[in-house]
Amino acid sequence: MLIVGELINTSRKAIKPAVESRDAAYIQSIAQQQVDAGANYVDVNCGTMVYNEEETMAWLVETIQQKVTAPLCIDSPNPKALEAGLSLAKNGQPMINSITGEKERYETILPLILKYKPKVVALCMDDTGMPETAEQRLKIAFKLIGDLAAAGVPEDDIYIDPLVKPVSTGDTAGMEVLETIYGVKQKYPKVHGICGLSNVSYGLPNRKVLNHAFMIQTMTMGMDGYILDPLDKTMMGFVHASKALLGKDAYCMEYLVAHRNGLYETK
Amino acid sequence: MLIVGELINTSRKAIKPAVESRDAAYIQSIAQQQVDAGANYVDVNCGTMVYNEEETMAWLVETIQQKVTAPLCIDSPNPKALEAGLSLAKNGQPMINSITGEKERYETILPLILKYKPKVVALCMDDTGMPETAEQRLKIAFKLIGDLAAAGVPEDDIYIDPLVKPVSTGDTAGMEVLETIYGVKQKYPKVHGICGLSNVSYGLPNRKVLNHAFMIQTMTMGMDGYILDPLDKTMMGFVHASKALLGKDAYCMEYLVAHRNGLYETK
Repeated sequence: MLIVGELINTSRKAIKPAVESRDAAYIQSIAQQQVDAGANYVDVNCGTMVYNEEETMAWLVETIQQKVTAPLCIDSPNPKALEAGLSLAKNGQPMINSITGEKERYETILPLILKYKPKVVALCMDDTGMPETAEQRLKIAFKLIGDLAAAGVPEDDIYIDPLVKPVSTGDTAGMEVLETIYGVKQKYPKVHGICGLSNVSYGLPNRKVLNHAFMIQTMTMGMDGYILDPLDKTMMGFVHASKALLGKDAYCMEYLVAHRNGLYETK
Repeated sequence: MLIVGELINTSRKAIKPAVESRDAAYIQSIAQQQVDAGANYVDVNCGTMVYNEEETMAWLVETIQQKVTAPLCIDSPNPKALEAGLSLAKNGQPMINSITGEKERYETILPLILKYKPKVVALCMDDTGMPETAEQRLKIAFKLIGDLAAAGVPEDDIYIDPLVKPVSTGDTAGMEVLETIYGVKQKYPKVHGICGLSNVSYGLPNRKVLNHAFMIQTMTMGMDGYILDPLDKTMMGFVHASKALLGKDAYCMEYLVAHRNGLYETK
């Protein structure tokens, strides 16, 4: 299971001013808290800084690495920002988010992947647009996996993101994702799945309940990566519980350690 | 989705003395609360009353039916107690829990099923004992379904219970159940699945977290019946959330009604 801590994102209210004022201590503290809470990777996204995304990415990567030793997920649709981050990333194998099946984006980002050898989030979209059905997603996913593997990217480094859409805009939105991850894992057991969770609950009340349930549903179908808020103790509690119930936690040891560390204590 | 409210069971501390003293008002109140909270069936289990189970079952069924109109699940391994309950059940189609593949039990209980035409919980066990693997469970389930169908029981009345065992005693205990329900639904889409949830967490801390997660996992794999405590608001909240995310709640209407009724309000 790979947990990417999503909090360092300049679209978040608390992060933007801290980044703008180059408040290193605050950013480092958020990074450290996420790692302490169980994040394997720290996401770095400054996509809202349209005028100086590259410079901001470089500052964030260097700042975070002064404090934490966990690897980073360099998160941007902008190849220059990705390279700014990748060229400075020194904590183990970095990750990028993301490549897609869009021809231009694919061709621009592939060389970065071959140069820096990161783990790669591959989004199920291409030049035909956003997919609706699991069938459409699987078609894009299989082409992406085939192309990346042919280019020399190990299957174990590929993380397919099925693109989660709100169930409020279509009853089958959740099922399409569940069928996509199941289909990917059936055909490519070494390839991973990853997704964000909050889109699924957009437009509905009690979003956290829906996000928690959708994490458990997707993990049941084979998803083994999440971009989430690791400071959400209920979410992390369900991550450990779900792994234990799926037989992915020998003797429930990880679950029991999380319990001993107080994860399940209510305030 | 079929929810059987499990609270009226003389193995429960609060229920036993109320049944012994024939406290009709208390029993009726527990029955009504469960129906108000979303139970479709009210389970009636007085298996601990070994000396007068039949008489107690008759009193419970009549007492509960004076108050609630929901159908009852007559729950006993004892054919005489089952018949005592079935013969008095008048709220729609009753349910029995349970028949098994054990030759003697099967042959004794089948005539009751053919006479009273209840929904039937069929437990995945036979004379070879308690199954370990999904494969063993499916073998028993398929024989039970085949035999019951051949005897004239509609597939839609059959609820396969895979027998949930603690994940603390074997890492694969949860997966065996998930694979069983998936296998049953693949072969017999009209047949239902049902299970209790609390066994899975036996021996581990934070049992409710595990029980909630296991409900979501099993529903993802096709389970569509649960024997649970409907007064557990977090559990019922996840039942509605999980259904909505699986596309089994058109326009999320049931979820939104549960929200409006305050199910997701924290105390």
